[in-house]
Amino acid sequence: MFKECLENVRKNVPLVHNITNYVTVNDVANVLLAGGGSPIMSDDIDDVVDITSICGGLNINIGTLNKNTIPSMFAAGKKANELGHVVLLDPVGAGASALRTNTANELMEKVKFDVVRGNISEVKTLMLGSGSTKGVDADVADKVTDENLEETISKLKAFSKATGSIIAVTGAIDLVCNSEKCYVIRNGKPQMSSITGTGCQLSGLMTAYLVANSDNKLEAAAAAVCLMGLAGEIAYDRMQDGDGNSTYRNRIIDAIYNMDGDTLEKGAKYEIK
Amino acid sequence: MFKECLENVRKNVPLVHNITNYVTVNDVANVLLAGGGSPIMSDDIDDVVDITSICGGLNINIGTLNKNTIPSMFAAGKKANELGHVVLLDPVGAGASALRTNTANELMEKVKFDVVRGNISEVKTLMLGSGSTKGVDADVADKVTDENLEETISKLKAFSKATGSIIAVTGAIDLVCNSEKCYVIRNGKPQMSSITGTGCQLSGLMTAYLVANSDNKLEAAAAAVCLMGLAGEIAYDRMQDGDGNSTYRNRIIDAIYNMDGDTLEKGAKYEIK
Amino acid sequence: MFKECLENVRKNVPLVHNITNYVTVNDVANVLLAGGGSPIMSDDIDDVVDITSICGGLNINIGTLNKNTIPSMFAAGKKANELGHVVLLDPVGAGASALRTNTANELMEKVKFDVVRGNISEVKTLMLGSGSTKGVDADVADKVTDENLEETISKLKAFSKATGSIIAVTGAIDLVCNSEKCYVIRNGKPQMSSITGTGCQLSGLMTAYLVANSDNKLEAAAAAVCLMGLAGEIAYDRMQDGDGNSTYRNRIIDAIYNMDGDTLEKGAKYEIK
Repeated sequence: MFKECLENVRKNVPLVHNITNYVTVNDVANVLLAGGGSPIMSDDIDDVVDITSICGGLNINIGTLNKNTIPSMFAAGKKANELGHVVLLDPVGAGASALRTNTANELMEKVKFDVVRGNISEVKTLMLGSGSTKGVDADVADKVTDENLEETISKLKAFSKATGSIIAVTGAIDLVCNSEKCYVIRNGKPQMSSITGTGCQLSGLMTAYLVANSDNKLEAAAAAVCLMGLAGEIAYDRMQDGDGNSTYRNRIIDAIYNMDGDTLEKGAKYEIK
Repeated sequence: MFKECLENVRKNVPLVHNITNYVTVNDVANVLLAGGGSPIMSDDIDDVVDITSICGGLNINIGTLNKNTIPSMFAAGKKANELGHVVLLDPVGAGASALRTNTANELMEKVKFDVVRGNISEVKTLMLGSGSTKGVDADVADKVTDENLEETISKLKAFSKATGSIIAVTGAIDLVCNSEKCYVIRNGKPQMSSITGTGCQLSGLMTAYLVANSDNKLEAAAAAVCLMGLAGEIAYDRMQDGDGNSTYRNRIIDAIYNMDGDTLEKGAKYEIK
Repeated sequence: MFKECLENVRKNVPLVHNITNYVTVNDVANVLLAGGGSPIMSDDIDDVVDITSICGGLNINIGTLNKNTIPSMFAAGKKANELGHVVLLDPVGAGASALRTNTANELMEKVKFDVVRGNISEVKTLMLGSGSTKGVDADVADKVTDENLEETISKLKAFSKATGSIIAVTGAIDLVCNSEKCYVIRNGKPQMSSITGTGCQLSGLMTAYLVANSDNKLEAAAAAVCLMGLAGEIAYDRMQDGDGNSTYRNRIIDAIYNMDGDTLEKGAKYEIK
């Protein structure tokens, strides 16, 4: 199944429009290319409607949102919805500032998202209207653990039911849920959090996976999460003495570039709840 | 000849003002440093005239153009023209949106460019007033092949004559033309298209090459194209099992850093038509 | 002492708000993570006050300043001052344009900075109201040498006294001064200037060092300078045939990631004047 998802991306080369932050944008572009997609970045209000029209999917990331790009997110989201394109929201830092929380909430109201992908604190902020965040990282108090797993899943399923969006929460344990089914994924390495933007990268990649697998969006989202985590494992195994987070970043993207369907299928560690 | 071009860049350390996209800007800066130039980025309307005045060349790349940076492109271009500086246009995504096409066309009207460097779809858009693009990549239908080579060259020569700009089209076969002479270059590797921004990087580098070789601009532009392609070949030979596009990106910049005139002279693969 | 500084950063994981340029922002984020800090980037006037409030320090870098981000620098600086947070100024390109010089001067007037970190040309511009710069690099005429060392130190001490800020000037010889004491640091490699943004990276890192060592700010600033330089030395020793500035960039960040207190303490090369 995941094998097919990966192969569909490589075969269809989905064009993904990214309105994303300038911190991790280069890595998002390279990871999309590594995974078999084709990235385009555009954030001006006079450009985004045309650009999103020629793409298959739209990735909205609010990491460095500003008064020029926020209206572009709404305009592009609306157009992508009209065209039936895949649309993903990455609510970076929701909970950390009023502007981020309000923008994310308003986007959720006015744009129909196929997926919302964030850390647990960001997603809690959207679910509850409030939440604690430590900047752009999840708060330790919010952490998904084996103890709170069942409870968290049932909340995420309810949130998915209420919004109609797949909810993808990434962290030590990753959860990818619709209203009925939840992938509990245990790929990845803790060291991935020492690299800026692995979440942003995943959001770009996940958009491409949904575009190329539009009949199986939940599976496609889960496949992208497994892919990113497995790439983190493969890359970690290649680390040598003296290597650190910068080399690790490069090797994760390299591992995505070299990933094939069989390796993904075999390496994916998940259960369905 | 190309040897001399490279050595002039390393000797003169040309300062290049870049108004460029935020996707690939870091690589553009590092590639300019690798090649022997000195980069400065500035895109505010109140800053660009001062900055371009202290530089030798201006690289305008419309990859993430917006309503603030577009007027800066015109203001900087006008000032650079007044001062007789080298000016290059990289019309990223011309053909993909009205804003990109119109901005590129209007820049061509109001600013005198020494070089226009883009992929074949972008350049066709400027030549014909229309063209097909696949996002920021060239459309396969537009591809330069041995079959359409003669015809393409004669069109590019005519476009160069009409505009007074050197036209540099990069792809599997690279063409660098003025109205009378065309370098047909066959350096590079197809895997370079799996890295975001090799085109942007080349535009930055090419600007430095023209600044340091202002008496031989066509040759300088061709030398920069051969340099980038040859670096792609050298870097490819250094790839090891498990390496992918992220490592390849780093190794290409490394190869430019280590390139000397003799290696470039010997490795350049071109004919003149 | 430096050992303790480093360990305090790793223990406290200081959250640093960066209003910084889009050229080197990804490296700034990764270097902060490598050093043990936690980065957040935000530059919209409606976002920065909230974001800086949840952080411990603020790093203001004017490298790609524009009319939207300049007011954000003042607003965030004012708020950070009110909250008693660490605030650092990196006056990139001061002296290269009126906008950069005036913005840096006005920031110095209206915001209280714990540290100003720049190259000698930028700092001279701020000290004297004028200076020569070569784009964003120091002018050779301004260079700190053993010949002008005493004179330079006494000027920097006077400037520190006048402003109340620690003055950190980096170059072949690094100087970190308050009004009474100056660390003269000789770590680093000349090849570090072939990488874009080692200065920006240091500014991010230094902010984290001051936040985690608020009782010893001068020592913390000096420790960050030694750390960056020593990482440059360690990374240089790991360079292999064919490696260039792109790989060197990655290895410097890797070396910061792997640095421990004992290595820093032992490798730091400085005297106090």
